[in-house]
Amino acid sequence: MTFAATVLTLYPEMFPGPLGLSLAGRALGEGRWSLDAVNIRDFATDKHRSVDDTPAGGGAGMVLRADVVARAIDHVADDRPVLAMTPRGAPLTQARVRSLAAGPGAVILCGRFEGFDERLFEARAIEEVAIGDYVLSGGEMGALVLLDACVRLLPGVMGAASSGDEESFESGLLEYPHYTRPYEWEGRTIPEVLRSGDHAKIAAWRKQRAEDDTRLRRPDLWERHSGARVGRPLARGED
Amino acid sequence: MTFAATVLTLYPEMFPGPLGLSLAGRALGEGRWSLDAVNIRDFATDKHRSVDDTPAGGGAGMVLRADVVARAIDHVADDRPVLAMTPRGAPLTQARVRSLAAGPGAVILCGRFEGFDERLFEARAIEEVAIGDYVLSGGEMGALVLLDACVRLLPGVMGAASSGDEESFESGLLEYPHYTRPYEWEGRTIPEVLRSGDHAKIAAWRKQRAEDDTRLRRPDLWERHSGARVGRPLARGED
Repeated sequence: MTFAATVLTLYPEMFPGPLGLSLAGRALGEGRWSLDAVNIRDFATDKHRSVDDTPAGGGAGMVLRADVVARAIDHVADDRPVLAMTPRGAPLTQARVRSLAAGPGAVILCGRFEGFDERLFEARAIEEVAIGDYVLSGGEMGALVLLDACVRLLPGVMGAASSGDEESFESGLLEYPHYTRPYEWEGRTIPEVLRSGDHAKIAAWRKQRAEDDTRLRRPDLWERHSGARVGRPLARGED
Repeated sequence: MTFAATVLTLYPEMFPGPLGLSLAGRALGEGRWSLDAVNIRDFATDKHRSVDDTPAGGGAGMVLRADVVARAIDHVADDRPVLAMTPRGAPLTQARVRSLAAGPGAVILCGRFEGFDERLFEARAIEEVAIGDYVLSGGEMGALVLLDACVRLLPGVMGAASSGDEESFESGLLEYPHYTRPYEWEGRTIPEVLRSGDHAKIAAWRKQRAEDDTRLRRPDLWERHSGARVGRPLARGED
């Protein structure tokens, strides 16, 4: 089964864009996944092909109409999850990426302007997803990010050697730091342990660095990781 | 002064990509910002134009060489901040986006493979930035996201009517939900308050919804917001 992505957007010409190059582009060419960009405007019903209108209650910008967008969703919907890229959504995690990559694909809805009429989310089963705590000019960048994250995990895309198991977030930790040749650069050398050939010592050093760096750089991740290790979430105020 | 972006990448053909269309593309055409994509490979010194080598200590994949990447950075460096898109970086926030957008631009370093030789970050002033807690096939998607977020805040890009002040994350809250015509759709109507014409009541309803939705959907944001409002961070175990 091929991972099938359908993107609903006002800018279908943004796709595949960067996903047509490098790892994702090669996989697209090899048929390991498919990408269909559908213009939401094709589902407008008036002669102006309107997709948006002014916000009820006033305010700047325009809001995407529930009726037009629902018609677009209903047209492409099948057994795939429908995701909307929006800053009000649940933060995207590597775990969600992995579960999506293991499924049949996704229908990805990209907003523009002030976003969607909220009734859309009451009337259809749509998962609202945010790629981070910042605001973009539209959902298209989020769709590119989400698809890139999924596609690299599809069978055969990265190759057996790079399963991604040791990467950041896979274990709930940041990844350990990397080094490569030259051995000495601007007076800085590669840590000796990495040149020892002692695989157990190298593994222990990497684990320690992953833990130390996570604790230092991302106390929020570290707290969740430590909580998860004892088999339950940390209660508030508990250390 | 024009916001000047220089992207250091192994895939310069990914740029401007989606940033050449819509809001960001129009602003690029109008000279409100500039974008220069520089190939890191141009700074290799051997006849194979090598940019990477195997990881010290073993393991899958390849690591970008500190010497080659540093040469690329040194070539383009000026008074702009240098950012590297990496999952080990600090999570990107709307506050950081806003401060970058107010500055002279950015040099953005995009990794591939297993990432950069760690000595690079010890030897150069580089801000490591993560756009979220997931892994991408390279830093290019992150650079597109970061630039899109910055460019829309540049003077004249969104227009005076949409300053973005009420958007998600600007106040530490998610944005309130939007509605637009038709008034009734699939039996669902627009909340009456939004049709009342009473601006004070509408503002109060929106504030309440922004708070309620943030508390419900993003308890992490809500906790930070509540802490900030009383002028100090919440101590652990304090409600």
